[in-house]
Amino acid sequence: MDPAQLLDLERRLGMVEDELAIRNLAARFTDAVNERDVDAFRQLWTDDAVWEIGPPTSVRADGVDAITKLWLSLLEPKTLFIQLTHSGVINFTGSDSATARFTERERGKGEHDYYENLAIYRDELVRTPNGWRFKSRKYEYRYLDTSAFSGDVFAPASKKEAGA
Amino acid sequence: MDPAQLLDLERRLGMVEDELAIRNLAARFTDAVNERDVDAFRQLWTDDAVWEIGPPTSVRADGVDAITKLWLSLLEPKTLFIQLTHSGVINFTGSDSATARFTERERGKGEHDYYENLAIYRDELVRTPNGWRFKSRKYEYRYLDTSAFSGDVFAPASKKEAGA
Amino acid sequence: MDPAQLLDLERRLGMVEDELAIRNLAARFTDAVNERDVDAFRQLWTDDAVWEIGPPTSVRADGVDAITKLWLSLLEPKTLFIQLTHSGVINFTGSDSATARFTERERGKGEHDYYENLAIYRDELVRTPNGWRFKSRKYEYRYLDTSAFSGDVFAPASKKEAGA
Repeated sequence: MDPAQLLDLERRLGMVEDELAIRNLAARFTDAVNERDVDAFRQLWTDDAVWEIGPPTSVRADGVDAITKLWLSLLEPKTLFIQLTHSGVINFTGSDSATARFTERERGKGEHDYYENLAIYRDELVRTPNGWRFKSRKYEYRYLDTSAFSGDVFAPASKKEAGA
Repeated sequence: MDPAQLLDLERRLGMVEDELAIRNLAARFTDAVNERDVDAFRQLWTDDAVWEIGPPTSVRADGVDAITKLWLSLLEPKTLFIQLTHSGVINFTGSDSATARFTERERGKGEHDYYENLAIYRDELVRTPNGWRFKSRKYEYRYLDTSAFSGDVFAPASKKEAGA
Repeated sequence: MDPAQLLDLERRLGMVEDELAIRNLAARFTDAVNERDVDAFRQLWTDDAVWEIGPPTSVRADGVDAITKLWLSLLEPKTLFIQLTHSGVINFTGSDSATARFTERERGKGEHDYYENLAIYRDELVRTPNGWRFKSRKYEYRYLDTSAFSGDVFAPASKKEAGA
């Protein structure tokens, strides 16, 4: 048997693992938002990451501390906030770097405000010793509706009780 | 060549296959709902599985027979019922067990009723001789709107004709 | 070490790669729509592919040129058009062919028209020398609402500037 065959298998498997790891990173972002899990959210980013939410919100945070602080300031006033992550495409730009785009939808509701959108997340990713991390995420709105909607809101179950 | 290398490749490949199998199980659930395919729906569960839909619906079924019966009782009155499964996170709790959370949205319409929600599916999964199966699914609403909406409903094409 | 083990690993890895390639093809379709990227859209199809949008739209195009022309004629009048691709199931019908179903949602807005739907994409796929391609896609509406909705529309950022 040719050792080159084994090396080739390993290279192909590594590409599959990298793709799944990046898809999982985006999924873990959404899960952290929907579960309001601060610790999980912090682990998604490089220390020097940049998070931008485009116009008309137009905010930006530099570094994981500022990103987490901004995230909490946006999330905490909402009694409802659910992010929906749909399909995405990944483009590897080097052995340890990639860009990605994910199609997003969010619905939120504060005490007197409503928020519903369609958007694209444009991402830069890097491989770190702890796995793939976001180097930057930019949320680009395509549609934003802040008019009132009906319906009832239910609080998330406790993370501790919830298991997964 | 070191046989340990091959064993390690096999272990890594097994992890990838397990992740994809669990994602496929959640996708097959949604497909069975949207295609109203009873046989496909039954195959997703262990015999002793538990299915819970949280408040305010608050129903629970124990065992695959009761689960299938409950499912049909919920689905059959609806002329429209589409489940949308978004990204999810998986946590392996052993070599043959895992938990998962998937972000969900559903829109349904009966003769005189309307149903639109955002929710989290909290799942327990086990590996069986026939592959990964749901040991439990718990649908946790975050948002529920039963007010009327406009739009037209189209019946699903016949499964037989449809191919996939 | 048994060479059969290596062959088996390669076969299993190939199945994983095929599944991911088909999921990526559907994701690239949605990305091409949302980014309005004509070149990316063309590359998704076999030369003799068929694209059908079912009733009540009821249009069909044969061949990648006609498909691209139809796509542009549908997309260009819309100031907003976002396609949301959710989970899907894949069924391999041979070593180089598969069928698939993906759950879809779209929201669009022209100058004086509105479009919101839920649908199933029924797909036939084939492996070509350049990877997996759509041999056919059939969009089957389950729900269609053309009544007006509120909210603001934002133009996509330039593809060139956007990176991924």
